[in-house]
Amino acid sequence: MPSDRGAPEARSVNRPAKGTGGPLEGVKVVDLTTVVVGPICTRTLADQGAEVVKVEAPGGDILRYLAAGSRTPAMSGKFINFNRNKRSIVLDIKQPEGLAALKRLIAAADVFVSNVRPAALARAGLDHASLAPLNPRLIHCGIVAFGTDGRYANRPAYDPIIQSLSGVAGTFDRAIGEPRFVPMVMTDHITGLVSAQAIGFALYRREKTGVGEAIEVPMFETMASFVTSEHLGAATFDPPEGPTGDARLLSADYRPLPTLDGYITVRPNDNRQSFAFFDAIGRPELKEDPRFSTPIRRTENAADYFTVQVEALATKTTATWLEIFAKADVPAAGYNTIDDLLEDPHLQDVGFWNFDEHPTEGRIRRTRTPVTFRGGMREQVLPAPRLGAQTREILAEAGYDAVQIDAMLATGAAQ
Amino acid sequence: MPSDRGAPEARSVNRPAKGTGGPLEGVKVVDLTTVVVGPICTRTLADQGAEVVKVEAPGGDILRYLAAGSRTPAMSGKFINFNRNKRSIVLDIKQPEGLAALKRLIAAADVFVSNVRPAALARAGLDHASLAPLNPRLIHCGIVAFGTDGRYANRPAYDPIIQSLSGVAGTFDRAIGEPRFVPMVMTDHITGLVSAQAIGFALYRREKTGVGEAIEVPMFETMASFVTSEHLGAATFDPPEGPTGDARLLSADYRPLPTLDGYITVRPNDNRQSFAFFDAIGRPELKEDPRFSTPIRRTENAADYFTVQVEALATKTTATWLEIFAKADVPAAGYNTIDDLLEDPHLQDVGFWNFDEHPTEGRIRRTRTPVTFRGGMREQVLPAPRLGAQTREILAEAGYDAVQIDAMLATGAAQ
Repeated sequence: MPSDRGAPEARSVNRPAKGTGGPLEGVKVVDLTTVVVGPICTRTLADQGAEVVKVEAPGGDILRYLAAGSRTPAMSGKFINFNRNKRSIVLDIKQPEGLAALKRLIAAADVFVSNVRPAALARAGLDHASLAPLNPRLIHCGIVAFGTDGRYANRPAYDPIIQSLSGVAGTFDRAIGEPRFVPMVMTDHITGLVSAQAIGFALYRREKTGVGEAIEVPMFETMASFVTSEHLGAATFDPPEGPTGDARLLSADYRPLPTLDGYITVRPNDNRQSFAFFDAIGRPELKEDPRFSTPIRRTENAADYFTVQVEALATKTTATWLEIFAKADVPAAGYNTIDDLLEDPHLQDVGFWNFDEHPTEGRIRRTRTPVTFRGGMREQVLPAPRLGAQTREILAEAGYDAVQIDAMLATGAAQ
Repeated sequence: MPSDRGAPEARSVNRPAKGTGGPLEGVKVVDLTTVVVGPICTRTLADQGAEVVKVEAPGGDILRYLAAGSRTPAMSGKFINFNRNKRSIVLDIKQPEGLAALKRLIAAADVFVSNVRPAALARAGLDHASLAPLNPRLIHCGIVAFGTDGRYANRPAYDPIIQSLSGVAGTFDRAIGEPRFVPMVMTDHITGLVSAQAIGFALYRREKTGVGEAIEVPMFETMASFVTSEHLGAATFDPPEGPTGDARLLSADYRPLPTLDGYITVRPNDNRQSFAFFDAIGRPELKEDPRFSTPIRRTENAADYFTVQVEALATKTTATWLEIFAKADVPAAGYNTIDDLLEDPHLQDVGFWNFDEHPTEGRIRRTRTPVTFRGGMREQVLPAPRLGAQTREILAEAGYDAVQIDAMLATGAAQ
């Protein structure tokens, strides 16, 4: 038994009540994923009512360890945030009994999510073709770095590799003269959300057809689609009608602009807002300027429009401008740091921040599910599980008796 | 009739065949959205087989105009990319007959998507409470800037405002000392994908319950959840165990690193990859260095680890490094510009780029849906519609006869 599994009294807290509430109530998910791309997919399903069993290898999801500031080993804040509402079982699938147990879980599940390379999955008999005979209603969602039909299929990839290949880093090169990453694991995160979306669509279809299927969600293609939907631009036409890219978004000045004491984001969009903006900065004559008289003209003359904004905004403080633009009904905002979000009054109003007593980690801060379903939301919140916290109960639910479970724990096939 | 509606022979090309294929085959969507956040939601539904009717106000979605390089008016590349597989009807809902026609469409739909401010929607009788009696099975997805329960509820917002308020711009301040935007309409785009996800979940539940519901997807809360899931870090604990933020992602050096002639992204993650990296850069002694001997230690000493990388990578060209790292099986990549993606060999392999003959815009480039459903994909691709291209046929399907349609076209209630 790993020493960081938690005290015995903390091992059964994550069993879902009958009926979780939420649109995915009753959906059983077996989750063989790690780090972010898979865990945000299955957290989304779990937040919306699915019963998610997180299957971990001995040692556990590496995200358990990848962050500073934990209270106990293997329970990083980042892990907690991406793994609430799940239960954890540790199986060593290199042992036949461990692999057999995983297959038994999958045989009784609605959804199986993996972010294992397809070749390795097939070797273990965990590809959809091998699993479908065990469970014809199974929906398998395979999250992969690159689509299996292309030449990069077997390359390893992590978020920064995909940010580089998919054009995300390249958009910064266009904007500021050097490639950069978005300081989040953005491509993992988005691909995980898209995977949860695809699973929802497949669950809907299965209600009609009665049979399951395999879904493949490749990170590279998903992000290449994301980037080019925005930035194909005039190259949508063949031959191109002009350069790729949305010039307005790729401007070096497309950013919060400096004021006397900080920064401000101003976004006058339609004519009313733009003309109110020109009045507010004391340049009413620009309302008549042919460069700025319509949305299309302002887009065509984006560089000049930015220059007007840059020059004007530098002359007063952020607070003064916010007051002026509020009165003029021009969309404007300062920017929030991560810490500011903890105190944001709107987020307080909507109950965005909740505080739970985690059975082993103490008081923790938890975000509310941002999407609201009037037809009913998940009611019971389960704490992010310690490694293997529900190994015994999940095996018992799968039909193993106490003697069998003890034997698996003794060999380490289950932990 | 607007002059940019297209020739009559181009007006009926978008009628879907019986059975689109795809997991959402048979789902009827009425789409009262504009720009990006709504259109990417409904494009996602359409790509997966839903029948989407795009309802436009006279003049049409402003995205039709917001880009350089169109071949004909009101058909920008960006509009085309976000609006394939949809049909367009123009209704003036300020006229009673126009509003009545919209309600008739909604009465026969499965899903109604809006990104109109809630107060305006309620005034027009288009909120879920007003619509449910007309269509108890209706799923209404209201995409809003801010949740209706909070104090910002009625503020206008565009993508840069949400990037500023949700902490996206703030992550750059932490990383590079000044706030910036991601050069995409990232928060619109992500919120739209999450909206499509939520609609899928609601469609699944409706199969069980038989009744529709209302969903609210607020951009600010959705993105605050996105940012803080990644960056709450040690502030997940209350009181905090340390500062917010994932320090590794917020490092100024978390970016493609300069080589002799360009940039490279290297991502040695586990021990094998990291030790192979140390060998490859000619510093095998670092394998024994206690700062770098495990993933946790490398995370804790991220700044030193970046320094090692920065110093080494500057000494050779990108091509030389890529060759070295490929041999050593260390994940590495150059970065692609938007233009590079058009020629990427893997994307060619998987058929990412398709070329269609648009009935009025000529030959256009189209991305493949990145997600693959083994159970069947949408087969027929519909070209992005010209403004009001299917007004007449959609009204006829809704039960209006030719005389009534002519009358509506004469008054401008339909266009």
